[in-house]
Amino acid sequence: MQSSRNGAKPVIAIAMGDPSGISPELLARLLREPDLRDEAHYVVFGDKRLLDLGAADGKVDPEVELVASEDALPATSDKPLFVDLVNHDPADLRRGKATLAGGKAATENFRRALQFAAAGKADAVFFTPFNKAAMRFAYPAYDDEIRFVRDAIGFDGPASEFNVLDRLWNARVTSHIPLSAVAQNITQERILRALTLADANLRAAGFNPPRIAVAGINPHAGDGGNFGRDEIETIAPAVEAARARGFTVEGPFPSDTVFLRAKNGDFDAVLTMYHDQGQIAMKLMGFDRGVTLIGGFPFPICTPAHGTAYEIAGKGIANLGASRAALSLAIKMARDAREKAQAAA
Amino acid sequence: MQSSRNGAKPVIAIAMGDPSGISPELLARLLREPDLRDEAHYVVFGDKRLLDLGAADGKVDPEVELVASEDALPATSDKPLFVDLVNHDPADLRRGKATLAGGKAATENFRRALQFAAAGKADAVFFTPFNKAAMRFAYPAYDDEIRFVRDAIGFDGPASEFNVLDRLWNARVTSHIPLSAVAQNITQERILRALTLADANLRAAGFNPPRIAVAGINPHAGDGGNFGRDEIETIAPAVEAARARGFTVEGPFPSDTVFLRAKNGDFDAVLTMYHDQGQIAMKLMGFDRGVTLIGGFPFPICTPAHGTAYEIAGKGIANLGASRAALSLAIKMARDAREKAQAAA
Repeated sequence: MQSSRNGAKPVIAIAMGDPSGISPELLARLLREPDLRDEAHYVVFGDKRLLDLGAADGKVDPEVELVASEDALPATSDKPLFVDLVNHDPADLRRGKATLAGGKAATENFRRALQFAAAGKADAVFFTPFNKAAMRFAYPAYDDEIRFVRDAIGFDGPASEFNVLDRLWNARVTSHIPLSAVAQNITQERILRALTLADANLRAAGFNPPRIAVAGINPHAGDGGNFGRDEIETIAPAVEAARARGFTVEGPFPSDTVFLRAKNGDFDAVLTMYHDQGQIAMKLMGFDRGVTLIGGFPFPICTPAHGTAYEIAGKGIANLGASRAALSLAIKMARDAREKAQAAA
Repeated sequence: MQSSRNGAKPVIAIAMGDPSGISPELLARLLREPDLRDEAHYVVFGDKRLLDLGAADGKVDPEVELVASEDALPATSDKPLFVDLVNHDPADLRRGKATLAGGKAATENFRRALQFAAAGKADAVFFTPFNKAAMRFAYPAYDDEIRFVRDAIGFDGPASEFNVLDRLWNARVTSHIPLSAVAQNITQERILRALTLADANLRAAGFNPPRIAVAGINPHAGDGGNFGRDEIETIAPAVEAARARGFTVEGPFPSDTVFLRAKNGDFDAVLTMYHDQGQIAMKLMGFDRGVTLIGGFPFPICTPAHGTAYEIAGKGIANLGASRAALSLAIKMARDAREKAQAAA
């Protein structure tokens, strides 16, 4: 497989997500999507018995080629390669319930896929949904995916979660911290870092140049200083500095109208100052149809934005839309990066 | 007119808003809406010459009865009464521009309408949109309407702005303060006060009992304490205390999904912890079609949620929907309050 990295098709490492929900079904059905199957080589990490369950749920045959280890892949194959980690006895499956067994399997799948990509053997990572409670049973330090990826591949550069709905992106300066800590964490340096990361990831996804709107932090973006001076003292100067560096960026805008403008096509992305400022808007616009991209690592990591949907586990009625969109984004970013690397070589 | 307070129809005091935008047109057209015209007595404060301009813009004849002072109203009239304050020379009108003259007229109209209601002569106040910059030219301390109303009628009890879109209400614990000051201003006492005020206003608008959802303040509502303890230490105990007092209230819920549930009809209102938490959601859902209610004062004060729309001033194309909804809410709350008072008498 490694030789295929010189070809046109990217290699996507896939981690099977939490087994108690719709992840096995999503994975089995996704691997059978004809267009996606043709666009990339796949190396899937999981337990084959769970894939078979997912295949039965989804009434599809994913037609994978089983391999015992990612270190001994066949030179050529038309099928997705499945590295059978034999790490979750189907007898331990509790549909609709977060379990330690499920968390252990999902964290191992994810770690192996990440390390495979970090070794240069895949161009992107995709995973079907994890369950945070299950991940924490197995890995108590699991704040979010970013922390896990840092630990798994030993990377400490800037990284961030991006939310993508159709053509609209949301990036953030701060994320999983208390609201009381947000303002003190908004500095010009951090805004510039977030803008740089957003710009790079948007470019990697084909926006050239990406048009980024920056949200204010206070009501009415501070109302000229009446409701806070962060916009005047920190955010506006950061936007100016970013423009001076060549970024196509505007703001700060009041956060309660900036998404209306972005939705109307005025911007490709909104940089928000804190988690809920973007999440409230994206979820209302239908972000559960959307994609989460974890950017900043040496390879893109994509997953559907929705969760494990325990309530419909095993029913064969999971909606494949967000998973298709997430895998398509991973493929596009991986292919563009390969082409760029080959052009430079 | 004062004697009409013993009748079934409520009396609504109306202030003409900022003259440079669509307010004169909205007012002229609103006074001609046959159903609304029948449902209440109206006492309008403004400059008759501007009403005539609005009537020409909107191609309607509002058919008002002119009166020289609110202290000398005719005993009976079938028409809206117009107190001509002669406070804005049409020659000073600058359409599309915030002016001191416009701000002076609008603040005077508003103050007179408020004081008329505070004297017990009207059951509710309605106004067409103000322009904040113009209001500040005339009244530099104009943070928002609440501050102005307090000053105008000398009232210092709890009051709050509510946003209403169709059947969904949004109330807030904090409003026009910097984000950095939000967390320290969230106390059990303030949440209970906001819930009490929201419950009372929702009841006054016919919800019985109102079902109120309370938003958390931190990402994922604190994620069990991982991303902040405000939910555990302050918000959840306040919700419990409110339930113990008989309120129909639930939460705290993550703020990025609570509006999806409310939109689906699970709740009548969402109490948010800060301004943008609610405004981002309400504006995306179409709050510009919605209504702003200022509640807590001895009478309800209603206005359309949208602004002065300077860009379409004088064109006769203003959308009347939000103004109709705002005036209808004022009428409903005023009528219910009258009926309640008469039943108790």
